[in-house]
Amino acid sequence: MDIYEYLTAHEDRFVQELKELLRLPSVSAQSEHAADVAHCAEWLKAHLTGLGFAVDIHPTAGHPVVLASRRNRPDKPTVLVYGHYDVQPVDPLELWESGPFEPTIRGEHLYARGATDDKGQLFTHLKAAEAWLATAGELPVNLIILLEGEEEVGSDNLGPFLSEHAEELKADYCVISDTSQFAPGVPGITYGLRGILCFELHLRGARSDLHSGGYGGVAPNPLHAAVELLAGMRDARGVVTIPGFYDDVRPLEAWERRQWAALPFDPLAYREELDVPALAGEEGYTVLERLWARPTLEINGLAGGYAGEGFKTVLPAEAVAKVSMRLVPDQDPRLLAEMFINYVERHLPRGVRCRVSSKHAGKPILVPVDSPGMQAARRAIARGFGTEPVLMREGGSIPIVNTFREVLGLDCLLLGWGQQSDRAHAPNERLALKDFHAGTRSAAALLGALAEVAPQAAND
Amino acid sequence: MDIYEYLTAHEDRFVQELKELLRLPSVSAQSEHAADVAHCAEWLKAHLTGLGFAVDIHPTAGHPVVLASRRNRPDKPTVLVYGHYDVQPVDPLELWESGPFEPTIRGEHLYARGATDDKGQLFTHLKAAEAWLATAGELPVNLIILLEGEEEVGSDNLGPFLSEHAEELKADYCVISDTSQFAPGVPGITYGLRGILCFELHLRGARSDLHSGGYGGVAPNPLHAAVELLAGMRDARGVVTIPGFYDDVRPLEAWERRQWAALPFDPLAYREELDVPALAGEEGYTVLERLWARPTLEINGLAGGYAGEGFKTVLPAEAVAKVSMRLVPDQDPRLLAEMFINYVERHLPRGVRCRVSSKHAGKPILVPVDSPGMQAARRAIARGFGTEPVLMREGGSIPIVNTFREVLGLDCLLLGWGQQSDRAHAPNERLALKDFHAGTRSAAALLGALAEVAPQAAND
Repeated sequence: MDIYEYLTAHEDRFVQELKELLRLPSVSAQSEHAADVAHCAEWLKAHLTGLGFAVDIHPTAGHPVVLASRRNRPDKPTVLVYGHYDVQPVDPLELWESGPFEPTIRGEHLYARGATDDKGQLFTHLKAAEAWLATAGELPVNLIILLEGEEEVGSDNLGPFLSEHAEELKADYCVISDTSQFAPGVPGITYGLRGILCFELHLRGARSDLHSGGYGGVAPNPLHAAVELLAGMRDARGVVTIPGFYDDVRPLEAWERRQWAALPFDPLAYREELDVPALAGEEGYTVLERLWARPTLEINGLAGGYAGEGFKTVLPAEAVAKVSMRLVPDQDPRLLAEMFINYVERHLPRGVRCRVSSKHAGKPILVPVDSPGMQAARRAIARGFGTEPVLMREGGSIPIVNTFREVLGLDCLLLGWGQQSDRAHAPNERLALKDFHAGTRSAAALLGALAEVAPQAAND
Repeated sequence: MDIYEYLTAHEDRFVQELKELLRLPSVSAQSEHAADVAHCAEWLKAHLTGLGFAVDIHPTAGHPVVLASRRNRPDKPTVLVYGHYDVQPVDPLELWESGPFEPTIRGEHLYARGATDDKGQLFTHLKAAEAWLATAGELPVNLIILLEGEEEVGSDNLGPFLSEHAEELKADYCVISDTSQFAPGVPGITYGLRGILCFELHLRGARSDLHSGGYGGVAPNPLHAAVELLAGMRDARGVVTIPGFYDDVRPLEAWERRQWAALPFDPLAYREELDVPALAGEEGYTVLERLWARPTLEINGLAGGYAGEGFKTVLPAEAVAKVSMRLVPDQDPRLLAEMFINYVERHLPRGVRCRVSSKHAGKPILVPVDSPGMQAARRAIARGFGTEPVLMREGGSIPIVNTFREVLGLDCLLLGWGQQSDRAHAPNERLALKDFHAGTRSAAALLGALAEVAPQAAND
């Protein structure tokens, strides 16, 4: 029996095991679930031990890290697989058609909290290892499996953990299955992520709220200052006006524009799905280009005065605005923060004071698409899904990818088996069973493909 | 003993009686004080009956109206004095230096909730009547005293009450002491009020909140639409850009500009009091001109996305903005509402939908400054305060003034005895004892001065 026959033969059992894992309510954000998170770590330790891994549970300041390894191939590369076993809270519970921790198959999908994010995806790598051990007697590479319990609450303790265990975690490749395919039937490899940079602005007018009758037309209104300041940051074509903003943006390469234009993407259906009369954004770029390769400036929150029921004729003393940028290669968050703060200082309407602070920042990511690891991943996905993967980017930021880059010096292979439409973080989260099985086949093929690459060629 | 000697001789007793009235916590906004409001109406009925008035308490759908009258001068004009005996809530209680309902004299002021707004001011008219009756044996005019218990909650039942009792309330003059002097030592008559027009805008983007990574740069952001739309409504010189906005604004007359420029007003001290680096507003007009005679457009509330502690990288599905205009003669709220709604429709950024509704509206007020009633009021204040009053306007709106105009056809004489700095609606509300006594003398002089004007000349 070859490895793919083994995987096919055991599909039903794998789903039963995954259901067991999904029944554990490992919600990291809610302290009443702390014991459930710990229990989930124990379940994984037992399961990995059963497969033949050396496994430790490492306590952290938050939830524990499960670290498993099997290193019997000194001549072969070492692969580090990252996943997270914690899940998002389930509210609003009343919108779930079946219990979030009662995994249920309806049609082609398995429904449960964590089905796609990330238990269902991480579990494919465990089953891939099982299949190698069962059919070949040994893994084709040295394999480290690192399972975090705090991804949904910011991975605060992951950086320190990686630093402390840097020697133990030394690897040639890092693999993360926590993204999505491009679309159903169109698997993809994510080779770029936007960075992020967040700002908070506190605008202050008079020493206290004022009556708009007694003071309107004379007292500075921090809400007006806020709208003038923020409106000025983008022009009518959706272009950010902050001087220097686009200076370090790497232009799209010809092959990227060509390949993306060929992707099965329908802007009209996308717009209808959002239920908006028109899409927004920078002129001169397609939707995917705007999402994946162009930087943005967006207001994420704005508050001041009275916006509740009824009316208060108040000139508020203060207003708060939250603004974030999505950055693309090669924009540097430190430089962008300076540009933003300079802009605010120069364009602040008279009469108000403004305190601006930059909050968390993450660099954009772009990895070479022709590295040996990427080539191995393409072959593996073609084998697992039966079709060549597309090269895609993502508009969001994945902070842990930066952490792996900065602490361990590893570029991650971002191989997502799920779909954008799988409702991660939302009610009725799900994973298509065929994506689960294709992902498992791909994960198995990946270990074989990476074994064929000389370790010294891996990260250069 | 003449009437002014009488007033001087009884100053201390008047203050004691006012303290009794101020001890009654007639907070109209709070249902737990409903019995206190009713009790206050009873106190006033008893007091007015003791003075020699015919008094009725009229229930309304809300708090009662106290209506007192004494009509023994068929040959003389009828004067309607309006006041309100309800008061604002007292929160935040901890900022009061003495209990809000424990009237306390410190220095030159009497401190209590309602001291200036409006119990202390309305009470001057009761004591003026007392002095006439005690010294002349009769009032010099027919006097109606109308005391409302719902001014602080919007006077919802006043209009219907005036309509139902229009015949009984027929008068030649209407007097309200619920405004302020221009400044300490500078009494004034308010001859103009700005109108008001309020709008609520609901801007809607996608069908739900979106992740700013996954959708930023493509999905319409209703917060950006709001800031663009609102920022465009005023230009850099503080001028409102809505077409037609200034069309019906009556230019200031030469005497107004001259007299206002001569008022003891220090823009620097005003700015320092507000604690702002600069004042705002329309270029080309002085502070008082901007406050009293120029229309405004101000944002009173704005909310969307997440503006609390921390950061949420959300593209909100909706945003709410509250906007109000202060209108000046001869702007018509109905026309201005159309202009605003047209502007929003024409300038709404693409990709968002906007629902705009106009909320309550009040017309601006401007009364002739040379009418017989105004001339009588000037003489009365000069007698009571020992100095000529200035002619002033106010930036705010007083809805009941419109109600008297519309229902009874009466222009009001707005004669305020208190100060802007008396902290109406705020902790440590107060009234200077000398303003109380000067106000009482003025109220007494006013009855005499109005008696000298032929009734037929009163309202034309």
